[in-house]
Amino acid sequence: NATLKAELGNAAWKVLHTMMAKFPDRPTEEDSDALKSYIHLFARLYPCGDCARHFQKILKKFPPQVASRSTAAAWACHVHNEVNKKLKKDLFDCSKIGDFYDCGC
Amino acid sequence: NATLKAELGNAAWKVLHTMMAKFPDRPTEEDSDALKSYIHLFARLYPCGDCARHFQKILKKFPPQVASRSTAAAWACHVHNEVNKKLKKDLFDCSKIGDFYDCGC
Ligand SMILES: Cc1cc2nc3c(=O)[nH]c(=O)nc-3n(C[C@H](O)[C@H](O)[C@H](O)COP(=O)(O)OP(=O)(O)OC[C@H]3O[C@@H](n4cnc5c(N)ncnc54)[C@H](O)[C@@H]3O)c2cc1C
Ligand SMILES: Cc1cc2nc3c(=O)[nH]c(=O)nc-3n(C[C@H](O)[C@H](O)[C@H](O)COP(=O)(O)OP(=O)(O)OC[C@H]3O[C@@H](n4cnc5c(N)ncnc54)[C@H](O)[C@@H]3O)c2cc1C
Repeated sequence: NATLKAELGNAAWKVLHTMMAKFPDRPTEEDSDALKSYIHLFARLYPCGDCARHFQKILKKFPPQVASRSTAAAWACHVHNEVNKKLKKDLFDCSKIGDFYDCGC
Repeated sequence: NATLKAELGNAAWKVLHTMMAKFPDRPTEEDSDALKSYIHLFARLYPCGDCARHFQKILKKFPPQVASRSTAAAWACHVHNEVNKKLKKDLFDCSKIGDFYDCGC
């Protein structure tokens, strides 16, 4: 079902980008390790099997960047664009990611 | 911003419940460890700080159940209801969780 798959993807990207937007500017080593592990586990457990396999390949090519909020946000924007490319969607201008995912929370 | 916080929660629950619905019926030990770690990291990194703190307390009381798809789905339903209780929302009848989160993917 294409609609459910798209809704799931939409929801998952929102959570991922918002997580990056709230990641510390100056993370501890533990924070960075937590985010890196989270991303790999997310890619493993993502419920759409084909998507998960494809995304795991993207992660091999572009390993998670977790040194700060801005590098993590830029990384997530980049890998989302990699998926956009595959799906022939418009690319997002990652220089504009700034407050786009501010959840005010 | 209450709307953005609610939209984020909505998205996050969709991803979490759908993940449970696709978790193997008979997971390997590695699968179960992956899901357990994922849930703890999700609770740590969830972008709404108050929600994350509250959810981490719920996890202490109700540790992730990862022995099979059905126990994982029932567990997620239960902890979502714990959040619903706190927010004075209607509880979900977890005996009806069956195909509710089938993403067809
Ligand atoms: C990890 C992962 C892998 C996926 N793999 C596949 C797959 O292999 N095949 C498949 O059919 N679907 C896949 N999906 C789903 C797909 O990416 C879309 O979510 C789905 O097609 C719905 O697309 P959408 O047009 O609503 O926008 P989405 O791609 O869901 O994006 C949601 C919103 O995010 C914003 N956005 C767009 N690009 C970016 C960016 N680069 N950075 C930040 N924000 C951005 C836009 O405002 C957009 O409306 C995957 C989803 C995830 C989370
Ligand atoms: C981990 C986590 C912790 C949160 N903590 C807080 C908090 O402390 N304070 C706060 O204000 N908000 C919190 N939220 C957000 C809150 O839970 C809701 O997501 C938000 O209020 C929007 O609610 P909603 O009415 O759209 O339904 P949601 O609770 O988002 O649920 C979405 C849909 O899931 C279904 N559903 C409902 N209950 C269950 C269940 N038990 N099992 C399966 N499916 C169900 C229903 O169809 C419902 O419409 C948290 C979210 C998450 C993911």
